[in-house]
Amino acid sequence: MTTHRFVPTTWHNVLGTLPPALTVADGDTVITETIDAAGYDKNGVARWPSPNPMNGPIFVQGAEPGDALVVEILRMTPIRETGWTRQVLAANVVDPERVRELPARDRTDWIIDRDALTVRLRAPVAGLEHFVLPLEPMIGCFGVAPSLGQAFSTATSAENGGNMDYRGFGPGATVYLPVEVPGALFFLGDCHAVQGDGEVVGTGVETAMEVEIRLSVRKGQMLRWPRGENADFIFTLGNARPLDQALQHATTEMLDWLTTTYGLSAVAASHLLGQVVRYEVGNVYDPAYTMVCKIEKKWLPKPSR
Amino acid sequence: MTTHRFVPTTWHNVLGTLPPALTVADGDTVITETIDAAGYDKNGVARWPSPNPMNGPIFVQGAEPGDALVVEILRMTPIRETGWTRQVLAANVVDPERVRELPARDRTDWIIDRDALTVRLRAPVAGLEHFVLPLEPMIGCFGVAPSLGQAFSTATSAENGGNMDYRGFGPGATVYLPVEVPGALFFLGDCHAVQGDGEVVGTGVETAMEVEIRLSVRKGQMLRWPRGENADFIFTLGNARPLDQALQHATTEMLDWLTTTYGLSAVAASHLLGQVVRYEVGNVYDPAYTMVCKIEKKWLPKPSR
Amino acid sequence: MTTHRFVPTTWHNVLGTLPPALTVADGDTVITETIDAAGYDKNGVARWPSPNPMNGPIFVQGAEPGDALVVEILRMTPIRETGWTRQVLAANVVDPERVRELPARDRTDWIIDRDALTVRLRAPVAGLEHFVLPLEPMIGCFGVAPSLGQAFSTATSAENGGNMDYRGFGPGATVYLPVEVPGALFFLGDCHAVQGDGEVVGTGVETAMEVEIRLSVRKGQMLRWPRGENADFIFTLGNARPLDQALQHATTEMLDWLTTTYGLSAVAASHLLGQVVRYEVGNVYDPAYTMVCKIEKKWLPKPSR
Amino acid sequence: MTTHRFVPTTWHNVLGTLPPALTVADGDTVITETIDAAGYDKNGVARWPSPNPMNGPIFVQGAEPGDALVVEILRMTPIRETGWTRQVLAANVVDPERVRELPARDRTDWIIDRDALTVRLRAPVAGLEHFVLPLEPMIGCFGVAPSLGQAFSTATSAENGGNMDYRGFGPGATVYLPVEVPGALFFLGDCHAVQGDGEVVGTGVETAMEVEIRLSVRKGQMLRWPRGENADFIFTLGNARPLDQALQHATTEMLDWLTTTYGLSAVAASHLLGQVVRYEVGNVYDPAYTMVCKIEKKWLPKPSR
Repeated sequence: MTTHRFVPTTWHNVLGTLPPALTVADGDTVITETIDAAGYDKNGVARWPSPNPMNGPIFVQGAEPGDALVVEILRMTPIRETGWTRQVLAANVVDPERVRELPARDRTDWIIDRDALTVRLRAPVAGLEHFVLPLEPMIGCFGVAPSLGQAFSTATSAENGGNMDYRGFGPGATVYLPVEVPGALFFLGDCHAVQGDGEVVGTGVETAMEVEIRLSVRKGQMLRWPRGENADFIFTLGNARPLDQALQHATTEMLDWLTTTYGLSAVAASHLLGQVVRYEVGNVYDPAYTMVCKIEKKWLPKPSR
Repeated sequence: MTTHRFVPTTWHNVLGTLPPALTVADGDTVITETIDAAGYDKNGVARWPSPNPMNGPIFVQGAEPGDALVVEILRMTPIRETGWTRQVLAANVVDPERVRELPARDRTDWIIDRDALTVRLRAPVAGLEHFVLPLEPMIGCFGVAPSLGQAFSTATSAENGGNMDYRGFGPGATVYLPVEVPGALFFLGDCHAVQGDGEVVGTGVETAMEVEIRLSVRKGQMLRWPRGENADFIFTLGNARPLDQALQHATTEMLDWLTTTYGLSAVAASHLLGQVVRYEVGNVYDPAYTMVCKIEKKWLPKPSR
Repeated sequence: MTTHRFVPTTWHNVLGTLPPALTVADGDTVITETIDAAGYDKNGVARWPSPNPMNGPIFVQGAEPGDALVVEILRMTPIRETGWTRQVLAANVVDPERVRELPARDRTDWIIDRDALTVRLRAPVAGLEHFVLPLEPMIGCFGVAPSLGQAFSTATSAENGGNMDYRGFGPGATVYLPVEVPGALFFLGDCHAVQGDGEVVGTGVETAMEVEIRLSVRKGQMLRWPRGENADFIFTLGNARPLDQALQHATTEMLDWLTTTYGLSAVAASHLLGQVVRYEVGNVYDPAYTMVCKIEKKWLPKPSR
Repeated sequence: MTTHRFVPTTWHNVLGTLPPALTVADGDTVITETIDAAGYDKNGVARWPSPNPMNGPIFVQGAEPGDALVVEILRMTPIRETGWTRQVLAANVVDPERVRELPARDRTDWIIDRDALTVRLRAPVAGLEHFVLPLEPMIGCFGVAPSLGQAFSTATSAENGGNMDYRGFGPGATVYLPVEVPGALFFLGDCHAVQGDGEVVGTGVETAMEVEIRLSVRKGQMLRWPRGENADFIFTLGNARPLDQALQHATTEMLDWLTTTYGLSAVAASHLLGQVVRYEVGNVYDPAYTMVCKIEKKWLPKPSR
């Protein structure tokens, strides 16, 4: 297994079938520096226009349509001392007639303390004097090329992943993406130092990161939607609006996972989901919302295949 | 403070302005036995028709429109050795074209072990041989009479509470309900031995419980939606469809709570929500879905009023 | 058949099981004056608080649960020279981030010319100098008592009708409502001189009307949602959010109508719907939105029952 | 002005920035034969895979980002005697728990009588013996390349048009599409002999057509969503889920049209919309639903620019 240091010189604002910027073998590790959602790098230099410039695509040898691309998020290290957010809730997460009362959605700066591993507001805000957050890095946008020659803006997400803005996509998470084109064509960027559920101000703390991931291929998985796991849970993601439909996609994908891989009947899978499913809201800001459907591993039978 | 043993002889299928079955003073405790969602009591005797027969209403002295009724859930003790669920996911939580493939939504029986404090399937199901759940009791449906002389079925929920089916409503939770009529007129029933997020099979493990609650009045709170707290979190609930709108209600209510009680500006409240909000799905089965918006208490400033 | 002149002295803000204000025989005609949505009568005198005060309820002899109440709207005559609207689009019908730019939702006055049968703005508005609308009266809110002892605010609608705000509910329309209680308990009010689709400013031209309706009973229809017909179409209504769900209810009710009354198979009904269905938006303002599903009568086979 | 006969030899399943198959001048007319949604041509020969193969793209000289591409649908002539539909309602347009009862969604054949200009079922269906529909041809899918290098499946629609499946897109309609790339890159295909609102069986009567359109450029229009007009109405389209959001997009686009082109204030535009807006449902089947917002031309002031 090789470790690649990938230094992009150009970025992309879509996930699509584009010429590979790097080719890796099944199981290789990639270390790469991302620029922030607005295209500013670790030195605060503007490198590429919005939205969410992506490093990539990375061609993974052996990946074919129907396979799953396995993305292990090994490490995320902030490489800038500042991040930024929008300062006010997005209009779509409050009652419509209340939008008029909201202040403007200006930018706010944050300090990322790379020694203390904390994140805090740069300027004091009344009532938030002690609001010092632990660093909880996550990748806001990553995914593979979609089917049919489609190409999707990095502002949104779909079956192929994309801008899911789910705070669970940090170190320790392994993600399975449905491969639709030879080589999978993996993209990543838009890292956040921390973010609440739903990305309700329209951003996490947007910054530049060094990311270390391992990319490998699992043959013939026939995923429909992204799946993942961490130490304690397996999970599926649906990306759509309304949130109800995102939940339907995620729940159906989990039903398929439980019945296919774990050999449960639809009834057994329903018993499991009915009493122990957990849902998390990825984002409720982007054009497609993201809902996460989780099952704690301790409840799972041994995989049947 | 008095403790009342409330033994209902009749039940209700709506939350509305009905003659009080019990009158209590501000701060009194009530112990009462509930029957299950289908109206069967602790002895398995049918006592009242579906849906979700309610004990109550309880008139709380001193409660006036604009106040909050404070409901402390002190204890929930199962009083039957059996519970039941639907055996298959509800049609509305899977992709529509997949509904055809689902088995029938028959009932399944569960065993509630009151010594071991566990819940398990009565009949063995392949792959779920070790599926023994810890008892996590919760009240599926409770609330106060709504405004205007309205009366809502116990199948659904609204600003006044109702069938929220949120698994966080167990012992240790304190709930604040917007009082709309003199005496608040509190109802409760539909207890579950355990339930996953979303009540995705359309039920938790439905059973009969003895519930102990304390009811008190907080004057002049002007809540719009139910609020609550437990040891670690404050939370708000929105009840509506789609889930997006439930989330808007819950988030707006939390914004109001943070700005009014905790003295934060809209910008400060947005910073807090943006980076530390957590959402939980109450139910995605009932006519109104329930979304819960949570903030961990450690991030809150001292209340300003 | 008797014609009743019904002069209410009290009004209601809910549709529920309340003491009848009038009892009529199956097939009787009722003539009654309504007050406007804000409770002002034909003389501009405030008679009752918002929302949408209702005349009624009217007990129709012979109506039993499972029957349909047949409401023929025979005549609607304005009895005031003025009406009013909100002057700006409701926040929920524009893109959320655009709400900030909208002016305040103040009231605007309109003139109803009862000789010319026209409606126009009282004060000149640039660009709308020639905006003189034909009078197209409609009943905004009417319905029967819901099941279970429920009572719903006249701000919203459900299976029992209510505040559907559909501009098709004018003279010439016949409406079928699912009876849930003995006598049906019919309510009406909230008349509009004219209204666009969707009630997108949150009002039609709100005014007082004299309404003449005939109420009769069709036995054993087992409707789930309101149905209706006019000279050219049969139609069904679904009331829910999101609009998608209202459309599901209306379409399912039409499927039931076509298969049950007209004897079509599900396939034949689908062919009909697929190629000739028409949808109209009742309202997209109230808590429940209203979608109308229509089939032109010329395509219908002879009813089989 | 030149008339081009465009005979494609390859088709596309996405709308994106692809090499032009034809270049035309501003104002030129194009006559082209389309194949059906499943890729079968006028002779019933399979030419290209699903979904909705597109003729194009056509590069229109002078079209630049920010302009509107004007598409006049001049003529649509069926070139095959058969069409096909799905025989049963799509699962997403009925109440979820009712989906189980629906028959399978098999294909049904239809006869297109090119002399009588009618469409009828090939095989007799009980109750539909006299179901002979007038030919009402429409283009199901057409649009321009989207921004940012995106490419969208012809199964769905967005700001750039696409699979809107709106029955108003027939001869006599003029459509304005927001140009995002030089030359606009226009695609079309997926013609229907007739279709009801909403495309509720998932198809119209799918067939091959000869289509004649004129393509021209209107400079600097800055459209956000497709607009159109016919003899009597101007209209805008929003493409999204849920239908509520599609309606928000269409209504906001109409508000912009009325205030920018027709010089109305937001209040005046709201008065117009409030009392005379008409909505039509394009489709409620595709990944993005389509809502149409219409204003009758007789109510419009003279354009101010």
